[in-house]
Amino acid sequence: DRGIRSATPEEIRAGLTADVYFVGTQQILQHLHKQEQVVAAEVFANHAGILAGVEETLALLAPLPVTVEALEEGRAVAEKEVVMRITGRYGDFGLFETAILGILASSSGWATAAREVVEAAHPVPVFSFGARHVHPAVASVMDRAALVGGAQGASSILGARQAGETPSGTMPHALLLMVGDTVEAARAYDQVMPPEAPRVVLVDTFKDEAEEAIRVAEALDGRLGAIRLDTPRERGGVTPGLVREVRARLKQAGYPDVGVFVSGGLTPERIIALKEAGVTGFGVGSYIAAASPLDMTMDLKMVEGRPVAKRGRIPGLTDNPHLTVKLANAPEMRG
Amino acid sequence: DRGIRSATPEEIRAGLTADVYFVGTQQILQHLHKQEQVVAAEVFANHAGILAGVEETLALLAPLPVTVEALEEGRAVAEKEVVMRITGRYGDFGLFETAILGILASSSGWATAAREVVEAAHPVPVFSFGARHVHPAVASVMDRAALVGGAQGASSILGARQAGETPSGTMPHALLLMVGDTVEAARAYDQVMPPEAPRVVLVDTFKDEAEEAIRVAEALDGRLGAIRLDTPRERGGVTPGLVREVRARLKQAGYPDVGVFVSGGLTPERIIALKEAGVTGFGVGSYIAAASPLDMTMDLKMVEGRPVAKRGRIPGLTDNPHLTVKLANAPEMRG
Amino acid sequence: DRGIRSATPEEIRAGLTADVYFVGTQQILQHLHKQEQVVAAEVFANHAGILAGVEETLALLAPLPVTVEALEEGRAVAEKEVVMRITGRYGDFGLFETAILGILASSSGWATAAREVVEAAHPVPVFSFGARHVHPAVASVMDRAALVGGAQGASSILGARQAGETPSGTMPHALLLMVGDTVEAARAYDQVMPPEAPRVVLVDTFKDEAEEAIRVAEALDGRLGAIRLDTPRERGGVTPGLVREVRARLKQAGYPDVGVFVSGGLTPERIIALKEAGVTGFGVGSYIAAASPLDMTMDLKMVEGRPVAKRGRIPGLTDNPHLTVKLANAPEMRG
Amino acid sequence: DRGIRSATPEEIRAGLTADVYFVGTQQILQHLHKQEQVVAAEVFANHAGILAGVEETLALLAPLPVTVEALEEGRAVAEKEVVMRITGRYGDFGLFETAILGILASSSGWATAAREVVEAAHPVPVFSFGARHVHPAVASVMDRAALVGGAQGASSILGARQAGETPSGTMPHALLLMVGDTVEAARAYDQVMPPEAPRVVLVDTFKDEAEEAIRVAEALDGRLGAIRLDTPRERGGVTPGLVREVRARLKQAGYPDVGVFVSGGLTPERIIALKEAGVTGFGVGSYIAAASPLDMTMDLKMVEGRPVAKRGRIPGLTDNPHLTVKLANAPEMRG
Amino acid sequence: DRGIRSATPEEIRAGLTADVYFVGTQQILQHLHKQEQVVAAEVFANHAGILAGVEETLALLAPLPVTVEALEEGRAVAEKEVVMRITGRYGDFGLFETAILGILASSSGWATAAREVVEAAHPVPVFSFGARHVHPAVASVMDRAALVGGAQGASSILGARQAGETPSGTMPHALLLMVGDTVEAARAYDQVMPPEAPRVVLVDTFKDEAEEAIRVAEALDGRLGAIRLDTPRERGGVTPGLVREVRARLKQAGYPDVGVFVSGGLTPERIIALKEAGVTGFGVGSYIAAASPLDMTMDLKMVEGRPVAKRGRIPGLTDNPHLTVKLANAPEMRG
Amino acid sequence: DRGIRSATPEEIRAGLTADVYFVGTQQILQHLHKQEQVVAAEVFANHAGILAGVEETLALLAPLPVTVEALEEGRAVAEKEVVMRITGRYGDFGLFETAILGILASSSGWATAAREVVEAAHPVPVFSFGARHVHPAVASVMDRAALVGGAQGASSILGARQAGETPSGTMPHALLLMVGDTVEAARAYDQVMPPEAPRVVLVDTFKDEAEEAIRVAEALDGRLGAIRLDTPRERGGVTPGLVREVRARLKQAGYPDVGVFVSGGLTPERIIALKEAGVTGFGVGSYIAAASPLDMTMDLKMVEGRPVAKRGRIPGLTDNPHLTVKLANAPEMRG
Ligand SMILES: [Zn+2]
Ligand SMILES: [Zn+2]
Ligand SMILES: [Zn+2]
Ligand SMILES: [Zn+2]
Ligand SMILES: [Zn+2]
Ligand SMILES: [Zn+2]
Ligand SMILES: [Zn+2]
Ligand SMILES: [Zn+2]
Ligand SMILES: [Zn+2]
Ligand SMILES: [Zn+2]
Ligand SMILES: [Zn+2]
Ligand SMILES: [Zn+2]
Repeated sequence: DRGIRSATPEEIRAGLTADVYFVGTQQILQHLHKQEQVVAAEVFANHAGILAGVEETLALLAPLPVTVEALEEGRAVAEKEVVMRITGRYGDFGLFETAILGILASSSGWATAAREVVEAAHPVPVFSFGARHVHPAVASVMDRAALVGGAQGASSILGARQAGETPSGTMPHALLLMVGDTVEAARAYDQVMPPEAPRVVLVDTFKDEAEEAIRVAEALDGRLGAIRLDTPRERGGVTPGLVREVRARLKQAGYPDVGVFVSGGLTPERIIALKEAGVTGFGVGSYIAAASPLDMTMDLKMVEGRPVAKRGRIPGLTDNPHLTVKLANAPEMRG
Repeated sequence: DRGIRSATPEEIRAGLTADVYFVGTQQILQHLHKQEQVVAAEVFANHAGILAGVEETLALLAPLPVTVEALEEGRAVAEKEVVMRITGRYGDFGLFETAILGILASSSGWATAAREVVEAAHPVPVFSFGARHVHPAVASVMDRAALVGGAQGASSILGARQAGETPSGTMPHALLLMVGDTVEAARAYDQVMPPEAPRVVLVDTFKDEAEEAIRVAEALDGRLGAIRLDTPRERGGVTPGLVREVRARLKQAGYPDVGVFVSGGLTPERIIALKEAGVTGFGVGSYIAAASPLDMTMDLKMVEGRPVAKRGRIPGLTDNPHLTVKLANAPEMRG
Repeated sequence: DRGIRSATPEEIRAGLTADVYFVGTQQILQHLHKQEQVVAAEVFANHAGILAGVEETLALLAPLPVTVEALEEGRAVAEKEVVMRITGRYGDFGLFETAILGILASSSGWATAAREVVEAAHPVPVFSFGARHVHPAVASVMDRAALVGGAQGASSILGARQAGETPSGTMPHALLLMVGDTVEAARAYDQVMPPEAPRVVLVDTFKDEAEEAIRVAEALDGRLGAIRLDTPRERGGVTPGLVREVRARLKQAGYPDVGVFVSGGLTPERIIALKEAGVTGFGVGSYIAAASPLDMTMDLKMVEGRPVAKRGRIPGLTDNPHLTVKLANAPEMRG
Repeated sequence: DRGIRSATPEEIRAGLTADVYFVGTQQILQHLHKQEQVVAAEVFANHAGILAGVEETLALLAPLPVTVEALEEGRAVAEKEVVMRITGRYGDFGLFETAILGILASSSGWATAAREVVEAAHPVPVFSFGARHVHPAVASVMDRAALVGGAQGASSILGARQAGETPSGTMPHALLLMVGDTVEAARAYDQVMPPEAPRVVLVDTFKDEAEEAIRVAEALDGRLGAIRLDTPRERGGVTPGLVREVRARLKQAGYPDVGVFVSGGLTPERIIALKEAGVTGFGVGSYIAAASPLDMTMDLKMVEGRPVAKRGRIPGLTDNPHLTVKLANAPEMRG
Repeated sequence: DRGIRSATPEEIRAGLTADVYFVGTQQILQHLHKQEQVVAAEVFANHAGILAGVEETLALLAPLPVTVEALEEGRAVAEKEVVMRITGRYGDFGLFETAILGILASSSGWATAAREVVEAAHPVPVFSFGARHVHPAVASVMDRAALVGGAQGASSILGARQAGETPSGTMPHALLLMVGDTVEAARAYDQVMPPEAPRVVLVDTFKDEAEEAIRVAEALDGRLGAIRLDTPRERGGVTPGLVREVRARLKQAGYPDVGVFVSGGLTPERIIALKEAGVTGFGVGSYIAAASPLDMTMDLKMVEGRPVAKRGRIPGLTDNPHLTVKLANAPEMRG
Repeated sequence: DRGIRSATPEEIRAGLTADVYFVGTQQILQHLHKQEQVVAAEVFANHAGILAGVEETLALLAPLPVTVEALEEGRAVAEKEVVMRITGRYGDFGLFETAILGILASSSGWATAAREVVEAAHPVPVFSFGARHVHPAVASVMDRAALVGGAQGASSILGARQAGETPSGTMPHALLLMVGDTVEAARAYDQVMPPEAPRVVLVDTFKDEAEEAIRVAEALDGRLGAIRLDTPRERGGVTPGLVREVRARLKQAGYPDVGVFVSGGLTPERIIALKEAGVTGFGVGSYIAAASPLDMTMDLKMVEGRPVAKRGRIPGLTDNPHLTVKLANAPEMRG
């Protein structure tokens, strides 16, 4: 299905996503009768951040005759800290350097950004709403990393399943526009949804948010869990003042327990201000999705018991007591 | 294969990467007997940039009874410009909003960053070296977007195939460290490689780059295409002065035609300075790979002939003469 | 009426608003038999700006035996440019130095700020809405200065009279809140107002501005001149996007000729952006009202034909060909 | 006296300084038979600052059938804090909204700036010298606000009277220029002034300030209270070094008790530096006079017992235990 | 005379100011039988600037068996431009590397700064007043460099001689303080000085500068060439306003031709503003004296006909057509 | 020897480096019969810093009939603190004002900068390598001042002697380039040097620094004291990463005790980062050599017992208990 251009797990396992220059390497090693050398390679992070993607990397490496030591997912790692060490014949794992670094770097980048918003929002929960900013092939990878970083749920179906969530209750602007009235749509949604699903109704489509919030609260008669504010930038976005007012007007109308869920261009700074105004849930999209990868480097540090390194790095294994053995299938290294 | 967590093309086509709240929408529309309404939705970019991902989106939509108008891939789009319009029954395509936006946003983000470095490097060619910074499932999507943005080649195997490249000739630091000497590795590589592949030898692993460059040039005796400089930050990175010196020393040693290929932390500013110093090729990784998605929004603008829009947007279709019909399978809209 | 603490014109003419140290001066001059000396004093602006307050100053000086040369109101003056020269016995006008400088400085400060917003808004008209930011005793002085600076009208009753305006047509939020519905209030206002007064209805009190604008346009059936947007900061203020959307929705509803009048925290930067979005009138309050006075200095430059100056200034009259004689009642200076 | 354009207390009481759109309001309310509604309006400050103008506002409202609660003058108020609440028939006080806000905003702006310089100068006294920067109609209003903010005296005659000061003793540059010598002028001033008035002599008109200070001290033979430094910017202004030198030279000449009073372009930063150098009094003009109004907003919050508010504000009365009843003449509100 | 710690010309010629590590070098070369090798060394500037010190360097090298090519003094050189090339046996000149670089770097640094102020002041002349900021051993070197950079004269006796000036006419503050009166000192100075020396009298010691200027002009009765202003920072320094006022007052007193010479903390920015105010001469001290050396590097580029260079530089001679042969005493280089 | 333009100690003592206007002063004083007046002059620093040059100044003044009080060399002085007081007949010492200020200002400027790098490097020693940035006549003056500021040694021969150092052991790039190989040069240098001199070998000329360091360590077989890194900017300069790597590789090769000496463009910031990486010695050139002079002012404060001062200064002696009498040869002051 090359219409959709992302690689399948089979293609990844077949090494097709590797950098091309790994291809000739095995051939050259054979030419030089060095293909049986056992080596140790270390992966380190170029910046501090939250580590993620370890489990997926282990799943990629599990079938191979390699030994892998690694840190735990979700751990805060320091700049230049070694996060994984792979020992084995280079020909057996070298082709996967690109994939390993890519999995760790992208997942850790997302987890790091998620941690930032989670800390800003604490104790109000954060949900990963970033699926629409990344390629669908990796939407659930991102959602998984956001959960590692502390998010409480995620918007993509695969991501929500990872969080053990049932498909959660809110609705797209499109539905409201087709129905033509928020209250009518909210009533239908209330009738169709399973009783245990929380009712979260988007109230910024047609009318003033405060007006619509009260209309919907009245229509759902106690079953409304939260309203969702996603006011676009053209209308000034969601401000702390809007949240305070909506909460106050709902309370005056007899609905003090209706929550306020906010989404749209959220950053740690905005989250802090909105939390103080009474928000009960945040949906964070681009702050997580557009996070830079936490770039990783893999360096060969031992070749058959001999410490090596390229210029700029220190030869030999790097001490990190937090590494634990995850796979133990490598042939023995000679020295 | 849920060890590798990325979604397969089949899962994407099955809607499993959608935001969960699209799931209940179809049910609600049926409850309200509105499932047959024909609507028009427009996608616009929230920032200016280079459009990519259109072809992949069309491949996703091709099996559906929808009509699609879109701009061409590679086109520079303005802030808020409509880049795609989809007409059809909402139930037939709504589930794909997340995937469509994700494909367009991520690909356009990468293409936009690629265009920036390509313009800085012009006329020196740029190659996408970012595979190691993104999840392997999307490495080739990124490489494809970089080509749309003007890159001349890409480092991932799938990416290189898209560029019609044969696996290109360079080598990892790991190979050099196992062999133990750059010249020995270069000789083996020269013997193993097909004659038409350009010989590009990495010269920053063991010794001074200038010294190594001359040793390799002598060893390959006229067959050396270029040396590659990737000096790490710990050693000051690749500076214009280093490039000038290496070129001058190669020339004095009788190798005026050996190119200098540079990689490692390149940005448009550094590229401009290095180009002036005589670089003949650039490998750009994180500048492209870590680019923010060019965030896209999809808005319903017509429902059965009636202009609509949520607050903050202008109801009805937006005029854009550059849109052309790509698919034409929608049922007719009633008005 | 010392409950209201501002000074009356009579008190000003009686010198009660002078700096106290002018009081003893006349006594000392008599003690020294110098009270008959004829002197020339020059007033200059310490910064560039728009000159205003000249007519009011002349009205203050008219009863006195002095000769006054001055520049015209509304003229752009340079830093340190002499704007007025007063010749006469010091005892006859010295007591008014404080008042003269105060009138010129405050009026010129307001006129300068008004000119800035008028230039930003050009050709869209600006109205001075600053009365609520200044003491009521000087609200009409400020409105007068804003007119000198180029404003087309002013909101205070005395200010509007100076502009030759009939009390213009808009309404306070309070009226709307008492009536309880914008349309009901708009209808009553339409019935009560004289036919020639333009109908300008405030639409941000209860409901979404776009929704309310259309409701009002329909209710007034062709007689609506403009809607007024004054959305508070808590709701994101008035954005260019809101203006564009309201105009588009009004046009789609069949009211392309209804204007959009905007007020609330306007600055030259915001005015430029809003003008592009289609605003047809601006009400500017604090930008004009809170303008710094254009500080003025009065220096004695001749005493009975002898050039004098304090340290830091150049003795003798300053050449300025744009000064013209406004009053000519001084006794002759001996030299 | 429309030559002088400021409004008289009578005009203010007659509502002529109101925004014109309050005029039609009463008519519309009658048209709708709502003129008897009793409402509550709250005034809040948009920024933190020092409250002033309360007494003058109460004097304006005293004749009306309204109940007024307010904070005390001189109190530090927080952003958005309610500073006054007015209850009554809207028709009875609505016309005064402009005046009330203008009095409170302008007075509080001046008091806030005065407090800043007073705190910087503490314990050295500050005098308000700003009369020449504002319209004479409000010079005493500003001086009164400066006293509320902590100033010890004021330069305008009406302002000085409010501070209970006898006209204080200093002299204008003009007097010195007419007399032609500082010592001669100082002697005459000493002879003319009442014995209890402190002798403060301006010493920067003709000669070096230190030289002149000693000449004057010798001439007044123990009766000199202070010299005043007002060196213009063209001569480098008054620096801490100048103050230190003048004090030292006076002390060496046998006049250690002569004070140094400084004026001219003072800001909190300069005051702090000058205080350390030994200044004994500050005359602050434009820092106080050019202060921005502390902008105030009046919102209707109750209509006949029903909580109301425009969008962006929270309906109903705002709790502020520091409000106390100042006037109690409103008819009862029905609910 | 080691009380005064500077080195004598003899010590410099004897190599005692060299970096110590040049000492062993000759010994090692002999040990290796390489002392007869003829080499070429190039000196380049690390920044753009004005070249000075060339003649002094040539004087140092003249007795040696070397060939020297160099650029002209006063020339603007580019970053990295070769300014001098020395050919000879290394043992014959290597010991002087430190001295050569020191002469060129310090002189060029001073000349570069002088050029900046000269360009700012043009066409008003600049005099180097920096002797008091540098060690007396190099005061005349600095003055010489300032002349190369465009200064018209210099304050040190040796510096003034280089400019062909007779000891110029001004006076120290100390003289004035001993005499006790500026006019008395000026008269004595006028009587003692040779008739052709311009009379420049310092007028900021006792009294107001303007007052003193006129007193002196009257006392010298047409023979006063200029007054000098050097007002200290404690008194606000020399401002453009002070210059304008002094010039105006001198002109009004009948002395339009008396110049105004300014010194004290001058920078290019201040010079530009003061020049517009009418200054007729500038004395610049610390801006020239405290200039950073224009750091120079000497690199060996040829050894017996073989291009060499250390890492970071390009082996072999650098083309610079502006170099001309200044000395031609080297033995021939073998190759 | 006017080829070398610096002044000799004899010329300095003869007053030839004085500002020319001191020349006429003595003549004028005689003309006025004031040459016998005894005066006191104080020197103060215009900025805070480290005092140096006192001993040299005393050596200059020792032959004169003056009394000198001064602070100690190396003392931290405050802004405006009096550092020296000279009492005597003005004619006996006035001519030396320029030289005194120049010695103190330049030495104190260098000492102040040296102190900054010494504090950054503490406890790692700093050596003054700045001789090549200053005129050779003052290279040893600068080195002496650096020692006063805390440097442990200096590179110039005269400077090293002052530090009691034997000519220390390192080598110029030129030697290495003539020999053609670092190891060969190191061996020769090891054979030629006295046994007690530490072997410090420059390793950045030909090959990778780490490679060369190990080659040299092996060649000198335990006698290598330190390698020196001076990597030029074109090659990225010396980074903390390079230092760490070189130290680690030397240790792995069995040479853990070889030090790392770093030079080249060092600043306090870079020194702090490099110290953490394990540097054992710093050679600081331009940071010390290019330091601004700590500008000094000399003011006459007493004339025959009468306190005097120019405008801007306070007449009479300034109290500073840290001044101690260094010379006591002045005639008595009358008063
Ligand atoms: Zn929304
Ligand atoms: Zn990075
Ligand atoms: Zn590399
Ligand atoms: Zn965006
Ligand atoms: Zn409003
Ligand atoms: Zn001003
Ligand atoms: Zn003054
Ligand atoms: Zn405000
Ligand atoms: Zn001076
Ligand atoms: Zn430099
Ligand atoms: Zn080096
Ligand atoms: Zn300074």
